Amino acid sequence: MPEQIQLPRTLNEYYDRARESMSPQNRAYFLAGAGDGRTMSANESAFDHVSITPRMLRDLGGGSTETHLLGQRLASPFLIAPFAYHRLLDAAGEVATATGSQAQSIKMILSAQSSVDINTVRSAGDDCDWFQLYWMGSRQTTIELAQMAVAAGFGTLVLTVDAPVQGVRDREIEAGFELPHDVSAVNLARFSRPRFAPLEGTQSIVFDRIAHTLPTWDDVAWLIAQVQVPVLLKGILHPDDAARAQSIGAAGVVVSNHGGRVLDRAPATLDVLPAIVEKVGPDYPVLMDGGIRRGVDIFVALAMGAKAVLIGRPIVCGLAVAGDLGVSHVLRLLRDEFEVAMLLSGCATIDDIRRDMVHLKL
Amino acid sequence: MPEQIQLPRTLNEYYDRARESMSPQNRAYFLAGAGDGRTMSANESAFDHVSITPRMLRDLGGGSTETHLLGQRLASPFLIAPFAYHRLLDAAGEVATATGSQAQSIKMILSAQSSVDINTVRSAGDDCDWFQLYWMGSRQTTIELAQMAVAAGFGTLVLTVDAPVQGVRDREIEAGFELPHDVSAVNLARFSRPRFAPLEGTQSIVFDRIAHTLPTWDDVAWLIAQVQVPVLLKGILHPDDAARAQSIGAAGVVVSNHGGRVLDRAPATLDVLPAIVEKVGPDYPVLMDGGIRRGVDIFVALAMGAKAVLIGRPIVCGLAVAGDLGVSHVLRLLRDEFEVAMLLSGCATIDDIRRDMVHLKL
Amino acid sequence: MPEQIQLPRTLNEYYDRARESMSPQNRAYFLAGAGDGRTMSANESAFDHVSITPRMLRDLGGGSTETHLLGQRLASPFLIAPFAYHRLLDAAGEVATATGSQAQSIKMILSAQSSVDINTVRSAGDDCDWFQLYWMGSRQTTIELAQMAVAAGFGTLVLTVDAPVQGVRDREIEAGFELPHDVSAVNLARFSRPRFAPLEGTQSIVFDRIAHTLPTWDDVAWLIAQVQVPVLLKGILHPDDAARAQSIGAAGVVVSNHGGRVLDRAPATLDVLPAIVEKVGPDYPVLMDGGIRRGVDIFVALAMGAKAVLIGRPIVCGLAVAGDLGVSHVLRLLRDEFEVAMLLSGCATIDDIRRDMVHLKL
Amino acid sequence: MPEQIQLPRTLNEYYDRARESMSPQNRAYFLAGAGDGRTMSANESAFDHVSITPRMLRDLGGGSTETHLLGQRLASPFLIAPFAYHRLLDAAGEVATATGSQAQSIKMILSAQSSVDINTVRSAGDDCDWFQLYWMGSRQTTIELAQMAVAAGFGTLVLTVDAPVQGVRDREIEAGFELPHDVSAVNLARFSRPRFAPLEGTQSIVFDRIAHTLPTWDDVAWLIAQVQVPVLLKGILHPDDAARAQSIGAAGVVVSNHGGRVLDRAPATLDVLPAIVEKVGPDYPVLMDGGIRRGVDIFVALAMGAKAVLIGRPIVCGLAVAGDLGVSHVLRLLRDEFEVAMLLSGCATIDDIRRDMVHLKL
Ligand SMILES: Cc1cc2nc3c(=O)[nH]c(=O)nc-3n(C[C@H](O)[C@H](O)[C@H](O)COP(=O)(O)O)c2cc1C
Ligand SMILES: Cc1cc2nc3c(=O)[nH]c(=O)nc-3n(C[C@H](O)[C@H](O)[C@H](O)COP(=O)(O)O)c2cc1C
Ligand SMILES: Cc1cc2nc3c(=O)[nH]c(=O)nc-3n(C[C@H](O)[C@H](O)[C@H](O)COP(=O)(O)O)c2cc1C
Ligand SMILES: Cc1cc2nc3c(=O)[nH]c(=O)nc-3n(C[C@H](O)[C@H](O)[C@H](O)COP(=O)(O)O)c2cc1C
Repeated sequence: MPEQIQLPRTLNEYYDRARESMSPQNRAYFLAGAGDGRTMSANESAFDHVSITPRMLRDLGGGSTETHLLGQRLASPFLIAPFAYHRLLDAAGEVATATGSQAQSIKMILSAQSSVDINTVRSAGDDCDWFQLYWMGSRQTTIELAQMAVAAGFGTLVLTVDAPVQGVRDREIEAGFELPHDVSAVNLARFSRPRFAPLEGTQSIVFDRIAHTLPTWDDVAWLIAQVQVPVLLKGILHPDDAARAQSIGAAGVVVSNHGGRVLDRAPATLDVLPAIVEKVGPDYPVLMDGGIRRGVDIFVALAMGAKAVLIGRPIVCGLAVAGDLGVSHVLRLLRDEFEVAMLLSGCATIDDIRRDMVHLKL
Repeated sequence: MPEQIQLPRTLNEYYDRARESMSPQNRAYFLAGAGDGRTMSANESAFDHVSITPRMLRDLGGGSTETHLLGQRLASPFLIAPFAYHRLLDAAGEVATATGSQAQSIKMILSAQSSVDINTVRSAGDDCDWFQLYWMGSRQTTIELAQMAVAAGFGTLVLTVDAPVQGVRDREIEAGFELPHDVSAVNLARFSRPRFAPLEGTQSIVFDRIAHTLPTWDDVAWLIAQVQVPVLLKGILHPDDAARAQSIGAAGVVVSNHGGRVLDRAPATLDVLPAIVEKVGPDYPVLMDGGIRRGVDIFVALAMGAKAVLIGRPIVCGLAVAGDLGVSHVLRLLRDEFEVAMLLSGCATIDDIRRDMVHLKL
Repeated sequence: MPEQIQLPRTLNEYYDRARESMSPQNRAYFLAGAGDGRTMSANESAFDHVSITPRMLRDLGGGSTETHLLGQRLASPFLIAPFAYHRLLDAAGEVATATGSQAQSIKMILSAQSSVDINTVRSAGDDCDWFQLYWMGSRQTTIELAQMAVAAGFGTLVLTVDAPVQGVRDREIEAGFELPHDVSAVNLARFSRPRFAPLEGTQSIVFDRIAHTLPTWDDVAWLIAQVQVPVLLKGILHPDDAARAQSIGAAGVVVSNHGGRVLDRAPATLDVLPAIVEKVGPDYPVLMDGGIRRGVDIFVALAMGAKAVLIGRPIVCGLAVAGDLGVSHVLRLLRDEFEVAMLLSGCATIDDIRRDMVHLKL
Repeated sequence: MPEQIQLPRTLNEYYDRARESMSPQNRAYFLAGAGDGRTMSANESAFDHVSITPRMLRDLGGGSTETHLLGQRLASPFLIAPFAYHRLLDAAGEVATATGSQAQSIKMILSAQSSVDINTVRSAGDDCDWFQLYWMGSRQTTIELAQMAVAAGFGTLVLTVDAPVQGVRDREIEAGFELPHDVSAVNLARFSRPRFAPLEGTQSIVFDRIAHTLPTWDDVAWLIAQVQVPVLLKGILHPDDAARAQSIGAAGVVVSNHGGRVLDRAPATLDVLPAIVEKVGPDYPVLMDGGIRRGVDIFVALAMGAKAVLIGRPIVCGLAVAGDLGVSHVLRLLRDEFEVAMLLSGCATIDDIRRDMVHLKL
């Protein structure tokens, strides 16, 4: 008779338990950041520079956490961020995560590096109908991947643009992380990836080979024009890039530094969010992710201008600790905390979470 | 023959001894804050951003710490903050605290969640004649509670408005805190609390049930008009809310975030105090609490605009360590430290503790 | 044959060795600050907010650390601060300190609370000709003390005004510090101190008794007019108080918070120094003390406007570790470090250490 | 059969391994700073106040890390900083370092205090053709040293001006560091150093002897006029000194505080860099060093205005851990990280690394 496992009771217990129970390799892959982890830490600590000034005695009856994004209804203004290789954490992989998200009516964005077949995941979760893709080295291959996702029933695409190469992943190198043989990006297997001619003279693999396979704004504009579904660009940190995304028809942007996994010393996402929202205007869908660990953090991100946020490592931890149940529980705790934050601060609706609810600390 | 217990000699010894001697459950309930405890810590560290610039060689003869508030005389400008369930810390509960406060002529605010009968406490302490109440779900029940307090001899009411629901009390959940069977809010037992119809569809307990039982500004204005005694509103953090309180006839406000027990990421009270005083004017009674641990902290709060302050956890610690005697000793140490701070900084009277005695550090 | 004791080789070794070798009681008395030690720490850390921008390739030949103060020549711009009861640290007490200071041609200010007879100390050290006094409860007693010092050959007086009562000395209380029977303020024994009538009603010992024995600006003006030697006021932290000192004929002021031993939360001395110098003008003798631990700190204090500085705890440590030799060695290390700082920053004379040699950090 | 040594895999592993494996004496000499190490630490932490805002989807094809400096081609915009006595770390000394730098086509600046003969080093490394010198006490001796270097094939000279005397090297004193008999500045042996007459009276060795042997701006102008090769001045921290260097014909300046080894409390180099570049204009060669530990740090320094940077302690660590191979590996890791930083931030060329790529954090 299997020992009954006691679920963590709080979000911090999930984070602690996950950190302890993971192998050093998985810990390095899932929880560490690029370089010295400065951007990853900055994402979290940026929230400590913001306070929520609650308002008292407002009428809060009949409020709700509901919001709409790209014409879609969100039960609460957050989604599961796309992350790779869920099967490293749970045998059911992305199916477990989709099941957990479904249980809480929270949308999940499936990563291009899903370790489970895209159709299997899609059918496991009604709320898993956003797909994240990377540029595949050429227009042709990229549109094929996009079409595959649309055909599988994914109605919204998220093109991640901030990771043209891997960052400096020292923690992974030191831990000796590598993918086990039975975990891979199964949905990408069928697509051809660029092959590089040998380097000549002082040529650089980065600038003389890889760089030629990377997309430009024109390529992305082309992609957006080709596909029938909305495409968001994920990984925007500069207001001008957000404006450019808007001008080429992107359905929105995700202010993100990839959870600090790519360029260490990139700014905290919360710090750059307001200037980006200022640039593209209050109606353009600006999402953000990075460092959100609590319901109050969701509140802060929204007050600073995000329409919704993505949650990465908290879901990683839920999945690692207790599979689909863990994902569901973490989502539930976040939802409840967020609802409590709204009530305590006097906000009945998402629209009430305005800029003047928060202020920056010295 | 009982072992003679050596009382702590300094405030820090009280705080350390209390922390050590409490059960993990009581420690979580009494000493932890909501969420990650950021607001609770911020309350304390806010004082570190302020310096007192002492003035030399002023005439200090015949000065005193005496002040007047709502026409009442305070021996020293601080009161015991209302906190729940003193019997968790000492068998005599609120009677012990009232006795200790009496010994030092310091006023005590009795919590609605007193674990001892309101009349018993009132008769144990002349200086315990302020009563704190929560909204009770309806105008009718709330006025009944207020009238019970007034009938028992409480001449000042404090309506706490910042805790419509419990905050995220993770430390309590993790420690498994729950009230023992013989400790409860005995004075509330007779009052009916709202009962909720089952939720339908996607309804939220918070917004579709609880929120309808919460008070609005109109309800509080009504309450103030009904009772014959002054009513202060406790839990104000925004200047506009303070102005609103003033306009509906509240006798004063307590700038408070409930000791960081409710909304984590709410601002430190000391940080918001000056703007609130600025808004309501120098004559309106603005009190504050949160993070005061030393006599110099009382001085700082007054210089930043408070007419008086409430002391929470230091009293918790005195009660936990040595019952009525501990409460009395902690109050005495605070009084003495405050008096020394006045003398060393060149202030003979409470009115001398002006804004220009302190300055903000970078 | 006594074990040969190896002297510390660096200032930090002196500070560490002293800290380790002192009894807990002496550690509390000599090295701790008032309250939570915040002002004491702030004194030191204030220096970390200032950088020295060195200038290159200037002509430095024939420079020196010499300076003049009140018409007196200082070999290097620092003096030994007055501190009480040297015999707690070394059997020879203030004589040891005077001998050590003599060896380095550094002036020593003898404390009113010297544990050795004033004449004995004076004759032990040519450079010990400044005397620090406290107000003695009345004009009469204070002038008697001053005259005793002048008669003993002290040509400069320093009246300490920042310690009308002891600060909150929790570390001493916790350590159970008290003076041993054979150590006392021998030079004050002959003077009568105020005796207080019993308190009546709600009277306060501080405001209704002690305060009446404290000096005002008028008393100090009177004292200055009476004595034939220059009198500096020690313990000034506000520009207006410095201006007042100047206007009543004080020969100078010492910007000091008594090494953080009196009012915790008083500002760091370095932070208030520039505004004070600004107020009284560049020619008025403004000295400072507090937190100076290195030669570069002396440089910084001078660049921020001090004419000279007093050194307290570093001398305490030298005396504690190795008596007269330790005092001499610590002074030597400070002198050498200061000389090196001048050379490395391109300053040949004390006058070259101007405000534009330093800048504040964010 | 010798045990196969596993090379460190990341830069931090080099730094950690070096720190662990060095003798306490070498650790004090190579890795500690002057005084309390504040300037050394500040050099590193200054980078934490700057963020890189990456730009997305730019065309990066055919970019490179190549740059030109004083008409010379640099494969990547950094050089090995001159540091003394490589033979303390590796038997082959500067030859090992030169070999390692050669392997990565990175230039090395040979220190005047090389522990290997200048010609031997020069012939070991094509890329080791910059020579660093100190003022030798007189114009004559200094020009002789410069000519020796030029004759040996060094085409660029770097005159270090920030270390007229040693700083306060407490860590070395405490560790008892001294040069072993078989390690010395072999190339300086033939040159006479100043001999000092005995001190008279209160004369100071620093100001009355050493200072007379130090160079002034005139001396350096003379030196620059004498030699046929470009001369950079190393150790500039003030804009006016940079302008003076420019005006006397220096080929460029190195903004440096000698890695925090000389004047503790000197500013972090990154903090003063922008004002210096502002002063001398965008075309004047301003290099910098201090605190660069990662490829992203090189990026930041360039964005803040440096044309190239020098790398000190990372090379120390590479040499200490694995000799020539270690130097080569550390250089490779820095090159790769820098290339990745360029790609991730959207910069194809060194000229793209402009001021607007970075922003200061609060
Ligand atoms: C282990 C891991 C793998 C990730 N893989 C992807 C990915 O495949 N595609 C993508 O766009 N983002 C990926 N991300 C970034 C996340 O989508 C998201 O931006 C980030 O996790 C948000 O920060 P947070 O973890 O602090 O919430 C990954 C993040 C983690 C932690
Ligand atoms: C254990 C505990 C219970 C409390 N219960 C109440 C309460 O019943 N009613 C109320 O208005 N405030 C309550 N408070 C808040 C206090 O009145 C006060 O605002 C807070 O303790 C002040 O902060 P401090 O503890 O840092 O001094 C409670 C505080 C604590 C620590
Ligand atoms: C143990 C001790 C005793 C002191 N006693 C006196 C005193 O008798 N009179 C006085 O004016 N200052 C006294 N001071 C204050 C010093 O004169 C001086 O202001 C302070 O030590 C300077 O700060 P520093 O210790 O950080 O250098 C004392 C300081 C210490 C540490
Ligand atoms: C052990 C050591 C010895 C050094 N010797 C010299 C030297 O002989 N000449 C010189 O100009 N700089 C010398 N430096 C300073 C370096 O050239 C360089 O300015 C500094 O190391 C840069 O800082 P970093 O170590 O943080 O990269 C030395 C630095 C170190 C760490």
